[in-house]
Amino acid sequence: MRTSYAVGVDVGGTRIAAGLVERKGRIVKDNRTLTPKAGPFAVVDAIIELVDELLVGLHPSELSGIGIGLPAQIDFLRQTVEFCTNLPLAGVDIRALVMSRVRHEVTIDNDGNLAAIGEFRYGAAKGARDFLMITLGTGVGGGMFVNGQPYRGSRGLGGEIGHMVVQLDGPSCPCGGKGHIESYLGRAAIAAKGRKAAETYKGRAILDEAGGSLDDLTAEAVIKAGLKGDEVAVHILMDAGVILGQALVGFVNMLNPQLIVVGGGVGESCGFMVERAAEIIAEEALAGRRDVRVIQAELGNDAGILGAAALAFDEHDSREGLHR
Amino acid sequence: MRTSYAVGVDVGGTRIAAGLVERKGRIVKDNRTLTPKAGPFAVVDAIIELVDELLVGLHPSELSGIGIGLPAQIDFLRQTVEFCTNLPLAGVDIRALVMSRVRHEVTIDNDGNLAAIGEFRYGAAKGARDFLMITLGTGVGGGMFVNGQPYRGSRGLGGEIGHMVVQLDGPSCPCGGKGHIESYLGRAAIAAKGRKAAETYKGRAILDEAGGSLDDLTAEAVIKAGLKGDEVAVHILMDAGVILGQALVGFVNMLNPQLIVVGGGVGESCGFMVERAAEIIAEEALAGRRDVRVIQAELGNDAGILGAAALAFDEHDSREGLHR
Repeated sequence: MRTSYAVGVDVGGTRIAAGLVERKGRIVKDNRTLTPKAGPFAVVDAIIELVDELLVGLHPSELSGIGIGLPAQIDFLRQTVEFCTNLPLAGVDIRALVMSRVRHEVTIDNDGNLAAIGEFRYGAAKGARDFLMITLGTGVGGGMFVNGQPYRGSRGLGGEIGHMVVQLDGPSCPCGGKGHIESYLGRAAIAAKGRKAAETYKGRAILDEAGGSLDDLTAEAVIKAGLKGDEVAVHILMDAGVILGQALVGFVNMLNPQLIVVGGGVGESCGFMVERAAEIIAEEALAGRRDVRVIQAELGNDAGILGAAALAFDEHDSREGLHR
Repeated sequence: MRTSYAVGVDVGGTRIAAGLVERKGRIVKDNRTLTPKAGPFAVVDAIIELVDELLVGLHPSELSGIGIGLPAQIDFLRQTVEFCTNLPLAGVDIRALVMSRVRHEVTIDNDGNLAAIGEFRYGAAKGARDFLMITLGTGVGGGMFVNGQPYRGSRGLGGEIGHMVVQLDGPSCPCGGKGHIESYLGRAAIAAKGRKAAETYKGRAILDEAGGSLDDLTAEAVIKAGLKGDEVAVHILMDAGVILGQALVGFVNMLNPQLIVVGGGVGESCGFMVERAAEIIAEEALAGRRDVRVIQAELGNDAGILGAAALAFDEHDSREGLHR
């Protein structure tokens, strides 16, 4: 049976957002709450509360299921949380806990994979069978599609683009590794460069965007100043674009994707950084691969909800043997 | 119809080897010749001559086809040579030229992909559905299997593992890029380290293996000295193992393979380097992925012939709708 709706839940370090989504990607209702800090069961309760609200008035047969995106490493095949930096969810059987209460199918996945699944179904990657998604935000994540399917790897843990090594002797990454993409392009790395510039007069525009406080200076302050044309901020972000491009050259050489979608808060807000990366790829990738398109993601703030809902539709349809 | 034989041709910068191979991987006959330097048609003629010799006495219906491995970037879908560093084959329609003369199906592929296909069918990767092959030789190449199939990318150019970026500001790579794996682990890089050591007394064991001549000092001299226990050579190769491991950490994080096979002349001859890489991966990969097995390839000198023959069998069977 072809159901009409799915629920997508986007669990982040600071807030949880959920939406009731039509098959075509329209969000009919949504709600959100701050992420509880009182341990895993409080998080589960918050998810259930949001979902219950969305399901009021809906006939159970209209719902494909519930997708939940987590900022965590997920063993997709076993549906378990292996590792989670910001939330105490490792080892907690989120799926079973939510499912036993809401009585609908629940599927969990890594937020980077869901960004790719969402862009594939509703956004910038429609129709692309082999593509790479990279999300630049607090962390750097992503996902990969092969032959029109999310690539998951042998244990369902694939897609951690942010933890590719791009510098053998590079700086520490929050995950414990060294020289990973995330240690160059995560919000913390961009903010650190902004803070360094703001220590002197030349970085005053960046400091202004942070309300004059070095301590409050975030990646967003750098991006805002850059978008207003401040040279120092533009320079920082162009450098980030070069690093993004060089990192992506490796993926283009290795994977020969037709498309790369750059998303996440940083990626979606900073078009010229993405363009700089595209230039680097056009110059430095191996022959024959340079026709890869590099574009910004399209789903914006709703990416998390839409990606999780898209997963719920996909899982429903594969359970029922339906094909899109 | 289930044919009995395939011909595998392994075209290298210095020699061309060909073999008549049974389905189970036994090489029934083989022959080889030096790679002609007189241009592309001389290379094609040499291939045809080797193949013709192997086919004497065989009924055409017994042959699945001919696979040809080239040290080149191949657009597999269009069966064209995009780029070739050592041989003047770019743009030459090798497949059509050989096929029109020998009157059997011909398929060409990159030698790294064929190494993966050969190990999957006959060697160390039997039964592994998601794995990575890396070949360490004069160049660094490789291939990747996803779901029991070679991963080819949108234009069939996938698998160039040697040209992943592992150092943003790294040394130049023969391909023109910067900081690629090949610029650290290709024979030239290992030989350069050996030569540097051999300039002083501490590198005398390495120099001995090169017959006392700095100019003749190759990666093989370093490996030979290392296998005999010379500390300086072991140190160089252990360092290479660390770099190999760190590069592979990125792939393990990104792709979550169940197995990594290290082949090529350098990879197959230097077990302790591969073991060092495996240790690094066990220490530095993200949680949940560290169970990946890292092993040496098994097909040795016959890898090129067997991989090309395996491709010919695969292509034959997919044309005929057969499944193994």
